[in-house]
Amino acid sequence: MKKILNEPLAYVDEMLDGLCLAHPDVYRRAGESGRVIARAAPAREGKVGVVSGGGSGHLPLFTGYVGTGLLDACAIGNVFAGPTVGDCIDAMREADHGAGVLRLYGNYGGDRMNFDMAGELAELDGLESTTVLVTDDVASASAQESAKRRGVAGVVYAYRFAGAKAEQEGASLADVTAVARKAVAGCRSIGVALTPCIVPEVGKPGFTIDDGEIEMGMGIHGEPGLWRGPLKRADALVQEMLERLLSDLDTARGERVSVLVNSLGATPYEELYIVFRAVARELQTRGLQIVQPLVGRYATSMEMTGVSLTIQRLDSELEWLLHAPAVSPFWRA
Amino acid sequence: MKKILNEPLAYVDEMLDGLCLAHPDVYRRAGESGRVIARAAPAREGKVGVVSGGGSGHLPLFTGYVGTGLLDACAIGNVFAGPTVGDCIDAMREADHGAGVLRLYGNYGGDRMNFDMAGELAELDGLESTTVLVTDDVASASAQESAKRRGVAGVVYAYRFAGAKAEQEGASLADVTAVARKAVAGCRSIGVALTPCIVPEVGKPGFTIDDGEIEMGMGIHGEPGLWRGPLKRADALVQEMLERLLSDLDTARGERVSVLVNSLGATPYEELYIVFRAVARELQTRGLQIVQPLVGRYATSMEMTGVSLTIQRLDSELEWLLHAPAVSPFWRA
Repeated sequence: MKKILNEPLAYVDEMLDGLCLAHPDVYRRAGESGRVIARAAPAREGKVGVVSGGGSGHLPLFTGYVGTGLLDACAIGNVFAGPTVGDCIDAMREADHGAGVLRLYGNYGGDRMNFDMAGELAELDGLESTTVLVTDDVASASAQESAKRRGVAGVVYAYRFAGAKAEQEGASLADVTAVARKAVAGCRSIGVALTPCIVPEVGKPGFTIDDGEIEMGMGIHGEPGLWRGPLKRADALVQEMLERLLSDLDTARGERVSVLVNSLGATPYEELYIVFRAVARELQTRGLQIVQPLVGRYATSMEMTGVSLTIQRLDSELEWLLHAPAVSPFWRA
Repeated sequence: MKKILNEPLAYVDEMLDGLCLAHPDVYRRAGESGRVIARAAPAREGKVGVVSGGGSGHLPLFTGYVGTGLLDACAIGNVFAGPTVGDCIDAMREADHGAGVLRLYGNYGGDRMNFDMAGELAELDGLESTTVLVTDDVASASAQESAKRRGVAGVVYAYRFAGAKAEQEGASLADVTAVARKAVAGCRSIGVALTPCIVPEVGKPGFTIDDGEIEMGMGIHGEPGLWRGPLKRADALVQEMLERLLSDLDTARGERVSVLVNSLGATPYEELYIVFRAVARELQTRGLQIVQPLVGRYATSMEMTGVSLTIQRLDSELEWLLHAPAVSPFWRA
């Protein structure tokens, strides 16, 4: 394992320390365990809170998206392991500004169980909350079973829309929840992996991919994808991925969409822009208008090589929210 | 070679296409060959121009730093190969707003030769220009031969300061050149590489590093470093790197510095923040005040694994310029 770290068991806490030391105006460690990141700057009283959570090893996800116009707080687990119930409750408390809290996170069993329990316990304390699960990964279940789909990079759009809506004076928990639901309903992602990554506490890859082979549809923790086969040309990969996304989303000519070309970690900017070029050409052919594309590292699996594509359908409200102010070292638009 | 691309020979041009398609408000392809990136938005008439150039394969360097408060134009070569004389001239013409042009780039023989020739040819056309070479890599030559040092990630600071100075009404070519000289004089970098990268047209790594070994001081094209040996703990690596940087820079307690913790490509954010934590602690012990640290991918070698540290000494002018407005998808501060 060739990683720059001190102790594998200290990986998450030292990373969180570094994050807060580097960006003290944005992030603050919170919660009894220190495994909650909350905003450093106080939010408006009466604002709806937006919380998320998930395992470590996906920076900028999930923690990086705490900030104005984004999340209020985030509960963080070990690498590829969900946060504890206690951390989920602490994150909800940090996000409570008197108008209720939206729990917004990717659809993974462990996260759901703990956030559900946290929601019930917080309710006993009088804290109203709702849940929206992000289910953008089209490779993880069929359209008929779309509620079973996992959440991947599309969670970034959901954070952005719900977070921006919650900053609006007068926005209720129902309003913010509705925006998050609309975002998720219009969002689809798919990834292709070229090489695996290593969980520091394990010290070796959890799976392998042969030289020259790729896995289409692999999940961000190495969950099995749709097919394994030889590496294809960038244009061919993009065509297959877009076909899977757009047929599932059922887009029509003239629609406006945002696009996220995301490095799973090691894949460099050069390749992301070669991929974006193919995406832009293909979407133009299909009569779709790209609004504010995102190209970079938004949802990673540490040093995994590969790329994911996300298509986010926009309406006038979502397009407005996409451009609303946001403060985060990881949101640049 | 596991890279997402179409044709190795089309790598650079498709990357540039994608960059301009993704950020049409920032970048525009220019020059006879199309291997110049210029600003999409017109600059102020009477503004000093700032140009750079270099090989591809280092995104966001060099091209990514074209934008308001940064570069006016950049000439781009093939992967790890300098730009042509013609492209250097075209970049200078794009940057000419009537007040002269600063040529600001890393100290590499090929780049220097071509930019010097371009400067002479442009002078025949009446275009006044100056040169500042960035020489921040302490591992590439001794302090006694510091003029021989190569330029690495520190070039980003030089772009930022010179670019922001040039936006100021009334700033002359001499003023902008002086700021760039001051920036370079106060900047030191060193990198440590864990795994190599692959030039697409070659298809295999240009060098190897054994499992469990690292190379301290390796250059961004794989130039030999100071020593090769077993991977150390992050804190020990940082201590050695900072000792080399700060003894060379001869900092005193109470000084204000900016710090760039840069991924050479594949090294993930998690490790960068573990490194930043060590940097912050060590600089605090030494009585140095960190201003606006940068943590991320600023100067890469595609998918190389490793990290570089840059220390930039600040005075009140440079600190002001660091916070001046800038528009670029890759500058976030």
